Amino acid sequence: MKTFNDATLGQVNEAMKNSWTAFKEYRKKDLKQRARFLRTIAKEIEAVSSQLIVTASRETNLGEARLRTEVKRTIFQLTSYADACEEGTWLDIRIDTADPKRNPEKPDLRKMLVPLGPAVVFGASNFPFAYSTAGGDTACALAAGCPVVIKAHPGHAETSQLVADAIDAAAIKCDLPKNIFIHLHGASFEIGKALVQHPYTKAVGFTGSFEGGKALFDLANQREVPIPVFAEMGSVNPVFLLPGKLKRDTGVIAKMYAASITQSAGQFCTNPGILVGIENDDLDEFEKLLCDEIKKVRPEKMLHPGIAKSFIAKRAKALNQKGVGIAAVSQFEKEENEALPTLAEVPAEIFLNNPLLHKEVFGPFSLLVKCSSMKELLQVADAIEGQLTCSLIATAEEAKQNAGLIEVLKEKCGRIVFNGVPTGVEVALSMQHGGPFPATTDSRFTAVGADGIKRFARPVCFQSWTDDLLPAELKNANPLGLWRTVNNELTQKAIQ
Amino acid sequence: MKTFNDATLGQVNEAMKNSWTAFKEYRKKDLKQRARFLRTIAKEIEAVSSQLIVTASRETNLGEARLRTEVKRTIFQLTSYADACEEGTWLDIRIDTADPKRNPEKPDLRKMLVPLGPAVVFGASNFPFAYSTAGGDTACALAAGCPVVIKAHPGHAETSQLVADAIDAAAIKCDLPKNIFIHLHGASFEIGKALVQHPYTKAVGFTGSFEGGKALFDLANQREVPIPVFAEMGSVNPVFLLPGKLKRDTGVIAKMYAASITQSAGQFCTNPGILVGIENDDLDEFEKLLCDEIKKVRPEKMLHPGIAKSFIAKRAKALNQKGVGIAAVSQFEKEENEALPTLAEVPAEIFLNNPLLHKEVFGPFSLLVKCSSMKELLQVADAIEGQLTCSLIATAEEAKQNAGLIEVLKEKCGRIVFNGVPTGVEVALSMQHGGPFPATTDSRFTAVGADGIKRFARPVCFQSWTDDLLPAELKNANPLGLWRTVNNELTQKAIQ
Repeated sequence: MKTFNDATLGQVNEAMKNSWTAFKEYRKKDLKQRARFLRTIAKEIEAVSSQLIVTASRETNLGEARLRTEVKRTIFQLTSYADACEEGTWLDIRIDTADPKRNPEKPDLRKMLVPLGPAVVFGASNFPFAYSTAGGDTACALAAGCPVVIKAHPGHAETSQLVADAIDAAAIKCDLPKNIFIHLHGASFEIGKALVQHPYTKAVGFTGSFEGGKALFDLANQREVPIPVFAEMGSVNPVFLLPGKLKRDTGVIAKMYAASITQSAGQFCTNPGILVGIENDDLDEFEKLLCDEIKKVRPEKMLHPGIAKSFIAKRAKALNQKGVGIAAVSQFEKEENEALPTLAEVPAEIFLNNPLLHKEVFGPFSLLVKCSSMKELLQVADAIEGQLTCSLIATAEEAKQNAGLIEVLKEKCGRIVFNGVPTGVEVALSMQHGGPFPATTDSRFTAVGADGIKRFARPVCFQSWTDDLLPAELKNANPLGLWRTVNNELTQKAIQ
Repeated sequence: MKTFNDATLGQVNEAMKNSWTAFKEYRKKDLKQRARFLRTIAKEIEAVSSQLIVTASRETNLGEARLRTEVKRTIFQLTSYADACEEGTWLDIRIDTADPKRNPEKPDLRKMLVPLGPAVVFGASNFPFAYSTAGGDTACALAAGCPVVIKAHPGHAETSQLVADAIDAAAIKCDLPKNIFIHLHGASFEIGKALVQHPYTKAVGFTGSFEGGKALFDLANQREVPIPVFAEMGSVNPVFLLPGKLKRDTGVIAKMYAASITQSAGQFCTNPGILVGIENDDLDEFEKLLCDEIKKVRPEKMLHPGIAKSFIAKRAKALNQKGVGIAAVSQFEKEENEALPTLAEVPAEIFLNNPLLHKEVFGPFSLLVKCSSMKELLQVADAIEGQLTCSLIATAEEAKQNAGLIEVLKEKCGRIVFNGVPTGVEVALSMQHGGPFPATTDSRFTAVGADGIKRFARPVCFQSWTDDLLPAELKNANPLGLWRTVNNELTQKAIQ
């Protein structure tokens, strides 16, 4: 395995200065040029995908099939965000034309999003492609017109370097500024701190632990000029099981959830870590079937020894809490760095009074919270913290009768799943991957889907500029054929 | 003058609990109901406008004509945001329909903005109507579906109380939940702190000083669950005077800027506090004409004695800096609590090395920064902090030749004015009233114009919900006739 030296603080400073210089050139590139760059990165990654998968599999223990899917997803992200970038609706263009007859005279006003500046992106441990070097944050920042400085995740530094080489090759092919993309290695907290606090850093993307994300958020807010941090810090993605539906589809739900809990050793930020049901015979039957499924799942190696160690510790801590019992563990022996699929159970009363049980155990672990009544289930819903997702398992009838519960779930999360599992985050404009704190640091934005581009932009209004001086996006003729709100009407027409 | 007691900390807690209860009802109200509420508030304010103007004039020293315009503006804000609320494009609806044939199956995903929860709004001293009790922040929060808790500005507490009564009357007429709007008095920092740090507070709107806004921002980020703070903290709104245009229209520009600097005793957040030009005979001529105009302006009473005192202190501090000279002051004697219109001047070299001179002197004060060359003017542009606005006075030719300068100005502000003055903030969808820190705490949002509604909302995605369970906004039939992006295409059509 190749080793890479941590960047020095001098190199961090140099990188940010170079990124700033690149910004001055890159922000002048039009939507087509940015889109072409993203598509070229996708092609370069595709060209070396076999090598990428072999390297990532060695570095992360993730299986080849899983990694192949992730590379495909990464390529889809790059190309679909390229399409969205070029289509340009994300620019949120609003134009109000002048009215010289009004008293006082009404000026011509035209607003669009412009890039924030250099973005620092931290690679994620669990997604070496889709949330790392050429992942969603990088693709969004580049689409918005921001250069990117990546801090490679040390867990897959070689993979990261290969992806970075592909991006560099794409930049050269597209004749884009040197340093539009800068790749740094580094395992220390100091490097992260220096990157977030550098005056030329204008936004930060991060996917990882609560501790890591919150530390970056605090550092960013303590700057002389605070900057936005988009930290996706995971959650327990609670699932609420209503009795009617559970009775009707007991076996199907048990199978579906056993797979969702244990897939890829549970190493997904949308892993369902908490199941909430109401005690009765059907819940017992569901639990039995779910236990049977969990027992059949073979332990898998986790991403790296640190994550396996953390799983063991957090699992043990949860299981050691008063009132928590083991419902099922995998029947297979586990080897080193493997995670043992586990279902635990706890009475709701105890869950409600022990905040530790609300916390994520990153891995194939889920806690079944048993309520004595619907009233108690509602109390559990009220007590949970901000989440990426909440899921509701219910018949149509039950959903209608429990509008209050649905309102509470909406309040708690960014995505609310009906009779499905939270794992499997679709890359689509309609996706919301982000939720109230502590799931993320900014619930108003998404980390998946082309709306994520908006994280790296802000509006600027041009007042009383003449047509020849305006950017193409705002000119009367609408040469790019963009959707624009003109005098309060959404249109693709030119202004006469 | 009536006096009001500060709310106790117990009353603050009670207010937030009541606001949270009101939220649970109010979030269920549809766009039409919210719009009707805003329009009814506008009518109630109109009905008592004479009383409001008399009271505000007594409390703030602002003239009746100015206040009449502000009440009109406030009414226009309420009604135009009501229109935008109902029209619903701000909901940013994105729908991707299911594809059961894809492998893996593609789920149905539908996303829209939902309200954040109770919003705390701090009244502004300089705008007793448009940025206070029923001002832009309140109108936006109510349009988004958030109840509002107002902390009245102590400088116009009686006016605030009258406006609050009008809002209460409107709520009753619209049969809306009690406590959808709560009005508190309070002059102490402790009350502000308690409001921002209350667990039920989900967003904060503020217009005022940098010190005040930054303190609220820090308090909000130190919460267990941080919340967004939209603090508009003012700026010096620099104006860059290029020589060709200055030569051509010397007198017109001087007159226009003298008015902009001194209007309403300079008590606007968009007041042009810095003028930047290149030393030559034309700049001398401009300065002479500007001085002549400033001398002719009569001092006006400031909003209240505290603001007058602060103006005197900040003006004196700026004038006492090494290298700063007085160019002109009003020829009239000033009376107590009046502000003396003042133009100061300083060589760019000194300005560049003294950060104190970059700071706002809230009042009728502007500093002419004299550069030895275009290169130095660019250095000044590079050195300024984040601003609400930047203005460029230039011929078309000069603008074309100085694209680099325009790029720098864009980077620094939220609105860039061409051959005009920054004062006079149009209420329009295309307005951007917000800029990079320290002008505001979140440059991605605007405090003026219907896009400000988005400050109080966040997206939620509904995955795999059946049509009958979806909110009206997301149903196939599109019963509200909203603009929605369906399968990546913007349309008002129903889904077949």
